[in-house]
Amino acid sequence: MNNEKFMRLAINKAKQGIKKGQTPFGACIVKNVNIISCTHNVVWKNNDITAHAEINAIRTACRKLKGIDLSECTIYSTCEPCPMCFTACHWAKIDKIIFGARIKDAQKFGFNECAISNKKMKQSGKSPIEIIGDFLREENISLFKLWFGQKNKKAY
Amino acid sequence: MNNEKFMRLAINKAKQGIKKGQTPFGACIVKNVNIISCTHNVVWKNNDITAHAEINAIRTACRKLKGIDLSECTIYSTCEPCPMCFTACHWAKIDKIIFGARIKDAQKFGFNECAISNKKMKQSGKSPIEIIGDFLREENISLFKLWFGQKNKKAY
Repeated sequence: MNNEKFMRLAINKAKQGIKKGQTPFGACIVKNVNIISCTHNVVWKNNDITAHAEINAIRTACRKLKGIDLSECTIYSTCEPCPMCFTACHWAKIDKIIFGARIKDAQKFGFNECAISNKKMKQSGKSPIEIIGDFLREENISLFKLWFGQKNKKAY
Repeated sequence: MNNEKFMRLAINKAKQGIKKGQTPFGACIVKNVNIISCTHNVVWKNNDITAHAEINAIRTACRKLKGIDLSECTIYSTCEPCPMCFTACHWAKIDKIIFGARIKDAQKFGFNECAISNKKMKQSGKSPIEIIGDFLREENISLFKLWFGQKNKKAY
């Protein structure tokens, strides 16, 4: 139940981003049932290629928790974190990633992914992070469809 | 000649960071012999686990070039970019990474790396980015030694 609630916060945040001309990605960080941060991608708004939803959520969480250690946190991401964001979660010592759509879905919608799955990243990098994928998968994929219907959509 | 010059700018920037209590990493982005950005790691200073030298250099370069496409740019990094930074370079369409020390060196000095080499990231993620490693290797490793001799050093 809680997982659905927090994922839907990320989904709603992604929808807010889409309305503002951003790409269809949202992320929410939760620690012991407390919402620490919830952000969408702002690559276009901030003119910053690193400003993915997860990176933004992690940066905000560090500020909020006054530290770089996000142990005991779970990140809910509407799409499987790219290897940049996966590794940021590793550095931050986030316990668990719960994601919706897959990197391959983002690729199909035109994003120039460095397409390595979280499972492979975890194995190759010997990361202790727990991963749950395909969570509310169809709802999360529908974000890409919503975005794709926007007039001024731009992938990268 | 130019490669040595630009790598030494990154090395000097890393040294400035060490003096200020930061970790021993520097990065310099160059486009057509013009220096676009040169930064050191500010994870501790900014209380931001994502504030690696390369991420900072890419963010600064996006601002300076007024765009998220860093094609034709080379990044000089004192240490092999971690998978977060490698993937940021991929997203930014940076042409070439030239690095000094290796991720495994950083690991030896206590950094909790998600230890996947740039070579493996490139292969697995099918990234077109060109990679030159072990450049001025000993000079770059000496940054870790300099940092390790500091009283208040802190890895993460």
